[in-house]
Amino acid sequence: MNNNTRYTVIGAGHGGKAMAADLAAKDFTVTLYNRTAERINEIAARSEIDLEYESGISRCCRLAVVTSDMAEALEDADVIMVVLPASGHRDIAHKCAPHLRDDQIVILNPGRTGGALEFRQILDQENCAADVIVAEAGTFIFASRSTGPAQARIFRRKNAVPLAALPATRTGHVLETICEAYPQFIPVPNVLHTSLDNMGAIFHPALTLLNAGWIESTKGDFQFYIDGVTRSVAHVLEVLDRERVTIAAALGVRARSAKRWLKDAYSAQGETLYEAIQANPGYQGIKAPRNLRHRYILEDVPFSLVPLASLGNQFGVDTWAADSMIRLACVIHGTNYYERGRTAVDMGLQGLRVSEVKRYVEEGILDSVYVASPRSKRAPQKRMTSTPIAIGG
Amino acid sequence: MNNNTRYTVIGAGHGGKAMAADLAAKDFTVTLYNRTAERINEIAARSEIDLEYESGISRCCRLAVVTSDMAEALEDADVIMVVLPASGHRDIAHKCAPHLRDDQIVILNPGRTGGALEFRQILDQENCAADVIVAEAGTFIFASRSTGPAQARIFRRKNAVPLAALPATRTGHVLETICEAYPQFIPVPNVLHTSLDNMGAIFHPALTLLNAGWIESTKGDFQFYIDGVTRSVAHVLEVLDRERVTIAAALGVRARSAKRWLKDAYSAQGETLYEAIQANPGYQGIKAPRNLRHRYILEDVPFSLVPLASLGNQFGVDTWAADSMIRLACVIHGTNYYERGRTAVDMGLQGLRVSEVKRYVEEGILDSVYVASPRSKRAPQKRMTSTPIAIGG
Repeated sequence: MNNNTRYTVIGAGHGGKAMAADLAAKDFTVTLYNRTAERINEIAARSEIDLEYESGISRCCRLAVVTSDMAEALEDADVIMVVLPASGHRDIAHKCAPHLRDDQIVILNPGRTGGALEFRQILDQENCAADVIVAEAGTFIFASRSTGPAQARIFRRKNAVPLAALPATRTGHVLETICEAYPQFIPVPNVLHTSLDNMGAIFHPALTLLNAGWIESTKGDFQFYIDGVTRSVAHVLEVLDRERVTIAAALGVRARSAKRWLKDAYSAQGETLYEAIQANPGYQGIKAPRNLRHRYILEDVPFSLVPLASLGNQFGVDTWAADSMIRLACVIHGTNYYERGRTAVDMGLQGLRVSEVKRYVEEGILDSVYVASPRSKRAPQKRMTSTPIAIGG
Repeated sequence: MNNNTRYTVIGAGHGGKAMAADLAAKDFTVTLYNRTAERINEIAARSEIDLEYESGISRCCRLAVVTSDMAEALEDADVIMVVLPASGHRDIAHKCAPHLRDDQIVILNPGRTGGALEFRQILDQENCAADVIVAEAGTFIFASRSTGPAQARIFRRKNAVPLAALPATRTGHVLETICEAYPQFIPVPNVLHTSLDNMGAIFHPALTLLNAGWIESTKGDFQFYIDGVTRSVAHVLEVLDRERVTIAAALGVRARSAKRWLKDAYSAQGETLYEAIQANPGYQGIKAPRNLRHRYILEDVPFSLVPLASLGNQFGVDTWAADSMIRLACVIHGTNYYERGRTAVDMGLQGLRVSEVKRYVEEGILDSVYVASPRSKRAPQKRMTSTPIAIGG
């Protein structure tokens, strides 16, 4: 491994610009892709992004290619870092499929719940024959912001970011490939872990919806995690969290509780989740979203809660709290998030038994075949064979 | 009709004390019943309630009987005014059943959704053979408060309170009987109208739940209908209201929309429900509940929203918004409000077609018989006969 690893960053938002610049600053060859060309006009003209570090020091970071042409973006890539809201994963998977080559690695930063699984499904539907590894991170590695058309800022780097490849047998290879750039990535057993340890699913929609009036009335001018988390709100978080942990258990995954996660990530402790949240200095000063058309609903309902509820439904776990949140979001936005969101069908898991899911995520072998009713054009196409299919080669 | 009509008021809360005193002040013979004797100790000792009128003038009102013995309470009553939260209706129906006599009138003030229907069901289950009319008001006739152990205050009297008897053929008789005391009661075609024009179902749970964090964080220190009703919150109210109006339509009832009701009741107008609410001077200054253990959830979820959702389910109307509210309330309070609440089974309507429901509420004739599975001890017992059953004689 050396700096010869070539990266393509997909998405030039708050995260993508910071990551592209950061990788370039580390002397990797970096291509930046964005679907909408206008968004990267200025970066393309300069071939550079100004990156401000945590320390306050700024640096001009030179990119090799800036493009909105997917063929060009993927041509020379070893690692493809997808840095998009989960709502963009499907479209990008369809766009990538024709251009992927053997041995390329796609990493979703992050996948939310079921991102890698759905990405893989779409590649299969598109008859992508390349031996590609799809992986997902549990969270995005930075706290960063786009601060201008060709400017980005990194506030903070996370120390440990869980990552798993699909199949899990390839996780080690992925980590080796990217460790020079990002030694912070750490392995977890498989993508069920990255997907089911999604804390955004627990915190984001519930806090937003149970404070809907307050958010709209004040444009979010209150402390989201301090004022907005009262005892009853925290109780709803606890129930949601219990649903998530129970679904994980049904799938043989020992997920961390939100309370435990607060202790591990922030050293914030308490008897109850309410107390642990209130005791977290990291939450001080964080304001609520300014309105309800925010990724805390637009992204976290369809791509965190809907996949959880769908897995709960398949594996016999009640998801009253998750469903109450999803339905409420559907009503508020006049959108059927169940339809739009990521379900077990989209993840390629419908009809599988737990042992089959486990074999699929661990080894990439799908030896039981479920022929889905043609729910939509996104329904699985390629699984209808009785011979084992190895994913990722 | 003259002042010889003898009233029994059931319930010595904010409403019951005011009504008992007000009737006594009008020279009717009044008995006041309360289940818990302690609550009426002081009234019993004095046989009086001090009533302060809208004008500020106070008057000492003499009651004939003050009791927590139901047999004594009903013994001489012509009209039994039930002035209780809907959560008390079931218990009181069971307690009344053995003591009711022919020609007595029971009026629920108000019934919320399905109050008279459920009361009737319970009398039937208890094999109450008396020819009793059960009626329900659409709302409580006063805005009133209990201001001391034997004190009450009336702030405002409503001009027009919808009332229907079960069966509707008896509504005229009920109104004649009570018109000397309360000419404000006006007839509506049947109890489906009083039950489905329940505006509390629309406003109370949604505003409370969508402002849950704000309520708990500030102990309700904001204007509930002004600050708490933002565009998205109002949108949820509109969807809930559309569900209610659609259920009513499915049952052949033309219900008023909440927007129309604001115009009729408060002359508050606007293009949208949001604007109409914001334009209502009657909502100015009304603070939010101080916490979430409030009748806006405890009463309005099980006895307004659950019956609506149950009717929607039976008659093919989607109730996503109502269900999202009910589920969220279930999660917050750790209570299965679907179980605890008033369903079509409790109302005696399960399995009936629209034409059968209509005949039942209009004429008291139940000529199709649905044998319910034994859901609970509250399941119908008496309907299992193929001969028409006339309710209310």
